[in-house]
Amino acid sequence: MPLREKMLIAGIRRAAARGIRSVGTGIGDDCAVLRVPREHEALVTTDFSLEGVHFRREWHPADSVGHRCLARGLSDIAAMGGVPLAAFLSLALPPDLPQKWVDEFIAGLLKLAKRYSVPLAGGDTAQSPYGILADIVVLGSTPDGKAVLRSGARPGDLIYVTGTLGSSVATLNRLRDGEKLRPKLHPKHFYPEPRIAVGKFLRDKKLVSAMIDISDGLSTDLGHICEESKTGAVVYADALPIADGLGDDGLQLALHGGEEYELLFTAPPNRRIPKQIAGVPITRIGEIVHSRQMKLVTPDGERTILKPAGWEHFT
Amino acid sequence: MPLREKMLIAGIRRAAARGIRSVGTGIGDDCAVLRVPREHEALVTTDFSLEGVHFRREWHPADSVGHRCLARGLSDIAAMGGVPLAAFLSLALPPDLPQKWVDEFIAGLLKLAKRYSVPLAGGDTAQSPYGILADIVVLGSTPDGKAVLRSGARPGDLIYVTGTLGSSVATLNRLRDGEKLRPKLHPKHFYPEPRIAVGKFLRDKKLVSAMIDISDGLSTDLGHICEESKTGAVVYADALPIADGLGDDGLQLALHGGEEYELLFTAPPNRRIPKQIAGVPITRIGEIVHSRQMKLVTPDGERTILKPAGWEHFT
Repeated sequence: MPLREKMLIAGIRRAAARGIRSVGTGIGDDCAVLRVPREHEALVTTDFSLEGVHFRREWHPADSVGHRCLARGLSDIAAMGGVPLAAFLSLALPPDLPQKWVDEFIAGLLKLAKRYSVPLAGGDTAQSPYGILADIVVLGSTPDGKAVLRSGARPGDLIYVTGTLGSSVATLNRLRDGEKLRPKLHPKHFYPEPRIAVGKFLRDKKLVSAMIDISDGLSTDLGHICEESKTGAVVYADALPIADGLGDDGLQLALHGGEEYELLFTAPPNRRIPKQIAGVPITRIGEIVHSRQMKLVTPDGERTILKPAGWEHFT
Repeated sequence: MPLREKMLIAGIRRAAARGIRSVGTGIGDDCAVLRVPREHEALVTTDFSLEGVHFRREWHPADSVGHRCLARGLSDIAAMGGVPLAAFLSLALPPDLPQKWVDEFIAGLLKLAKRYSVPLAGGDTAQSPYGILADIVVLGSTPDGKAVLRSGARPGDLIYVTGTLGSSVATLNRLRDGEKLRPKLHPKHFYPEPRIAVGKFLRDKKLVSAMIDISDGLSTDLGHICEESKTGAVVYADALPIADGLGDDGLQLALHGGEEYELLFTAPPNRRIPKQIAGVPITRIGEIVHSRQMKLVTPDGERTILKPAGWEHFT
């Protein structure tokens, strides 16, 4: 193993050492050994963060890349109503990458990990002949048989979304236009917050029938729920929680913008959904219908077909 | 999601569909949901297979790349004495990659997965602006507290290795020299067999004190056992199961060649280790000592320092 990789692994081991005892034996053996709570099932999700596909070094500071890398995995756990148990990072680095970049990347990832008490329990390292390549794996759990799937929506269920929509892709568009932005002022794009507490609350209280996180855009991700549940949906444009300051494009950005990491869920109409959960506003945006189409009711009352036109990274 | 990725995911879903029912809900949701057997701990391992680092398209046929990708993960599970429960594949592909390559890669991976009844339960796909990038995650299990670690070797323990050593790197050297080889005739390099049954037997029968798989080379991987166990080791050169036909380089290739995917383990001297387990020969090659050095006893009886000089991929 090259010295660089050894140092990286040693650094990750040190940084993660405090968290690891609680879950089992970890970094440095052939596998991490972890305990899934009794009468719980394991959740597993993997997500790439590839330079030039999911981030750009000139746009995203290293700590944001590390944060976003882990947030993608945690958000998938949230969408099942699960709690995260441990994360694993496969990381391939170009030989000329400054150590400072690596340190800040790891710091950004571990800061988010700490907030959710998720130990970094293992992974793999390699030298990359290309750009920076990361793959995050998150192991989580839910009580047996209680994971919230995409397939549980039924006609008549109401559709809800957490937080606001549209600002992550709006920030990306400004970066694309060459604007220099201060990351701390645009947290939705640079430091998105996975909705772990909301997902767990909804599952605990048996409020939801189906759930997904908005990573590809509302239209695409609602399409996934409809496809897996064999239903359609009606969305009310003027009900959407469009983020402030998006101007005339707001509706389109909210409908199709990706990387929101908000939760999109459905609930039977007799369930009382709080207006706010764990400090995050919850908005009712539509309903599930029998006919297998997605429709948008525009502010003037017209019904149009809503096509999945979610955001496809920036390749 | 681009059409190519959709087709890939659909293909993987179809191919994996038969296996998935046994473990839970799988491909196509935010996470895979899996059941870890009662009173078992979860094992998690992740391994990159990057074009130009771990394989080359001009050397390795696609089905071999798929096989080797999964074999790396399964071998880590074997080294803990575990059984694999499910695999997850993150796969990023260049847009100009022929579909035939992808199909053969997946076929090679699934053929090995089928042999060990491991469903492909999820993963991620992306377009790669670089070469072919794969990251395999394998989830396995061992009974609570019974995973075999690297850290359990004690002075006086005997050192054993499965199979033969040296031929994987010998094949690689011939590829490097520009030779055209028929992959089926060099299975140790192109289609290595993870030693799942051997690892499980050794753990079941409580025969081993420490174990690792030889991915980086005997000298390096024995070094890991010594480091984690805070011991040293003596290895007898003329005891090593050097593969046939390696000529004068045999000893060096056996000591330092990587990607063998054999198991290296230690056992207290009062344990009777079978000469063969699950059809795989087992060879005693040395012993664990108190002094924290690794030594090699050469055929003429001389003791020399054995330095970790394992193989570092072919970058």
